[in-house]
Amino acid sequence: MSGTILIVDGLATNRIVLKVKLSAAYFSVEQASTAADAVAAILRDKPQAVLMSGDLPDRDACELIRGIHALPGCDRLPVLVLSADRTPQVRIDLLRAGADDVMSKPCCDKTLLARLRSMARHAPVEADLDLTHDTAEALGFAEAQAGFAARGLIAALHSGAARDQALCRRLAQATSHRFETLRTGRTDLLTGLQVPPDVLLTFLPPGAGEPELVHLAELCSAPQTRQSRVLALIDPEDDALAAKVLDLGVHDIAAHDADPGEITLRLEKLLHAKQADDTQKARLRTGLHAAVTDPLTGLYNRRYALSQMARLIDSARSSGQTFAVMVADLDHFKAVNDTYGHAAGDQVLTRVAHALRDALRPGDSLSRIGGEEFLVLMPQSGIADARAMAKHLCQTVRDTAITLPGVQTPVTLTISIGAMVADPARQGATFEPEAMVAEADHALYAAKSGGRDMVTISHLSAA
Amino acid sequence: MSGTILIVDGLATNRIVLKVKLSAAYFSVEQASTAADAVAAILRDKPQAVLMSGDLPDRDACELIRGIHALPGCDRLPVLVLSADRTPQVRIDLLRAGADDVMSKPCCDKTLLARLRSMARHAPVEADLDLTHDTAEALGFAEAQAGFAARGLIAALHSGAARDQALCRRLAQATSHRFETLRTGRTDLLTGLQVPPDVLLTFLPPGAGEPELVHLAELCSAPQTRQSRVLALIDPEDDALAAKVLDLGVHDIAAHDADPGEITLRLEKLLHAKQADDTQKARLRTGLHAAVTDPLTGLYNRRYALSQMARLIDSARSSGQTFAVMVADLDHFKAVNDTYGHAAGDQVLTRVAHALRDALRPGDSLSRIGGEEFLVLMPQSGIADARAMAKHLCQTVRDTAITLPGVQTPVTLTISIGAMVADPARQGATFEPEAMVAEADHALYAAKSGGRDMVTISHLSAA
Repeated sequence: MSGTILIVDGLATNRIVLKVKLSAAYFSVEQASTAADAVAAILRDKPQAVLMSGDLPDRDACELIRGIHALPGCDRLPVLVLSADRTPQVRIDLLRAGADDVMSKPCCDKTLLARLRSMARHAPVEADLDLTHDTAEALGFAEAQAGFAARGLIAALHSGAARDQALCRRLAQATSHRFETLRTGRTDLLTGLQVPPDVLLTFLPPGAGEPELVHLAELCSAPQTRQSRVLALIDPEDDALAAKVLDLGVHDIAAHDADPGEITLRLEKLLHAKQADDTQKARLRTGLHAAVTDPLTGLYNRRYALSQMARLIDSARSSGQTFAVMVADLDHFKAVNDTYGHAAGDQVLTRVAHALRDALRPGDSLSRIGGEEFLVLMPQSGIADARAMAKHLCQTVRDTAITLPGVQTPVTLTISIGAMVADPARQGATFEPEAMVAEADHALYAAKSGGRDMVTISHLSAA
Repeated sequence: MSGTILIVDGLATNRIVLKVKLSAAYFSVEQASTAADAVAAILRDKPQAVLMSGDLPDRDACELIRGIHALPGCDRLPVLVLSADRTPQVRIDLLRAGADDVMSKPCCDKTLLARLRSMARHAPVEADLDLTHDTAEALGFAEAQAGFAARGLIAALHSGAARDQALCRRLAQATSHRFETLRTGRTDLLTGLQVPPDVLLTFLPPGAGEPELVHLAELCSAPQTRQSRVLALIDPEDDALAAKVLDLGVHDIAAHDADPGEITLRLEKLLHAKQADDTQKARLRTGLHAAVTDPLTGLYNRRYALSQMARLIDSARSSGQTFAVMVADLDHFKAVNDTYGHAAGDQVLTRVAHALRDALRPGDSLSRIGGEEFLVLMPQSGIADARAMAKHLCQTVRDTAITLPGVQTPVTLTISIGAMVADPARQGATFEPEAMVAEADHALYAAKSGGRDMVTISHLSAA
């Protein structure tokens, strides 16, 4: 995200006036005079937000908004419309087309700048990570979000004024999401909700001052609502208040006398944005989990094994305790693939992997570090522990009869194991993960040459 | 992060008063009366921040802070100290021990609550991701950050008052980081900096009001300083201002007449926290990249290949264009491992992988989907394209002579390839990634049985 704001307006004077205001507030600015130029500028400059006139020379504003969000990687690019038309339906159409806000011309500079600051502050979760295109694509970040969301929770927080209550009843009817109404002034207010609300609707009374603003700031950081999107309904005449509320971290504001249809739309847009962010976070978690896991067997991968060894080395250095490293390799595994096919081979690997994992002690770990090669790490273990466990693992594999689809007789395999014990007191030994794996690997070769289905302990480790 | 604040104070009345204040601001609260209880509560409740008295019955406050940060996963847990002792050296000792702030007792409730909100807002980048312990550990998130940071950039922004200039000169001398001084009131102010500052120091004049606060908000969202940590020096008597400044998104505040040693320490703590966050972001990026990459060859992995196929399928469905899927498998690769060892085998795989990648057209992609098995995806390609490319790849591998350390004659291998063409118009075919790989795999088996070093195109695709 470049931090640039793209101004789209057919009139040069409008663009110049806006550019001066935005530059004075430290924004960098690009300009476009037509919808066609705007699309080119977005692809070229990758702006952080688009600030466009509702009245363009070459294209309908709603169409342009939809066009912008269909550009690659732009489905969540914030668009702010300055519209001369105050008709509720025009505003609703623009919001429905995907505008993040519609401000009436002439608009208050303070509120406009606060709105742009708010957009920068609430950039999507992945924007700041600067993932490469390939990585983002493979993880699904580049995919457009589904238009319709799961049922969410909207919580409205009001002081009991009859007008607010009436509005809440209308909003509750208009939305397909769960809508809970809460009274302010009770400290246990939010704990009554079973789950944190996706969206919080708050009412700021006319003449709202310090106490109301502090209350809003509290809601934005309270454990129950810290992740919620907040829409504040405010007095439309109080421009300074609008700016302050946005700078406090509120996600959206609307006039308290706005069309209920507009308020509903804003609530649902906030809810969808919240769910989209939750999805992106889940993708991040899944991606990061995948970075340390073998997809076939669900075991840890080589990357994880090496990082765990680095931690074992650190703790061995400070405690003086040894740990064991074993490399286990299935015997004649290629024959399984050649005889029964790859799919059967994958099944065999998975069964053996789980049998090995179940045979280990709590605290030991198992990773798949090659095709049919596994790494066992045993913290706080010596040669006797390693030998006993290795023999136990050989026996476990020998005892695991694997039934394959379409194959009469269950398949049984054997495994060969090479082990070494990492001892910080050992003279002359390299205390590095790769060197330890190589030493265990060397012992494994001895086990393979010795006839397979057996265990070899590295002789170095007995010195 | 639970959103809970842990109060540590030997006096029950103090704890009760604080608990009432915090609860009214929607925080959930746990209590401890001794340092020993505090450690137990942190391990049990995983609080979001610790609010402790500077005067504990059983342990020195500095010692407890260091002890807290040494607990597993707690090296960045925010600690706020309420201290009755206003001596500059005591404050500096507490900050140096790791306190995020030291507030003098009796402290202003507004500022205290705003500080806690600020801590929640500026939680570390990984806190909201809720990674599992294993994933976080493997990616290095759980590792304590290095105590000393690379040289960073601190930018001070002042209006030209002689007192501020004098302070800047002292601060510039006291820090080992780059220290740039800028005059406010110039709109090109920040563009003069070659790189965005890690930390921004701003001076709020006594009686600062709306314009100064808006300027601060602008700095917190400007492209050049959006990622910077901001320390604002303010009038220590103006408690309402302190709270407002923190709620605007400023990271830290100090009295403008504070000891220069304290200001330097705060600047450097902010700089270290910024660099720690940058490191975590880099780890996230690396982790996510690793999720789609094969560590040995640097090619994409199976996960990436399948997600790219899903995208190719989508675009083939809408455009009607075919694409080619090929599975390539090195012939007799096991012999290389058996003859020359695993390390040599890895070298061979990497050399072949890169030779294959260099032989493809731009837009084609290559993934390693098994030990010696590669997947080629060719967008917008038919049978003729696939056949020509497959033959070219076989020739490329045949022509790649690989020199291994300690081996006289360069090693040469061959590769077998099975190909299929995915055609959305094809009757009866499953248009799924896994089914396509299986079909190409089936063709590969025919190439292997046919004598290896050859190409088979799936017959189904010619129908």
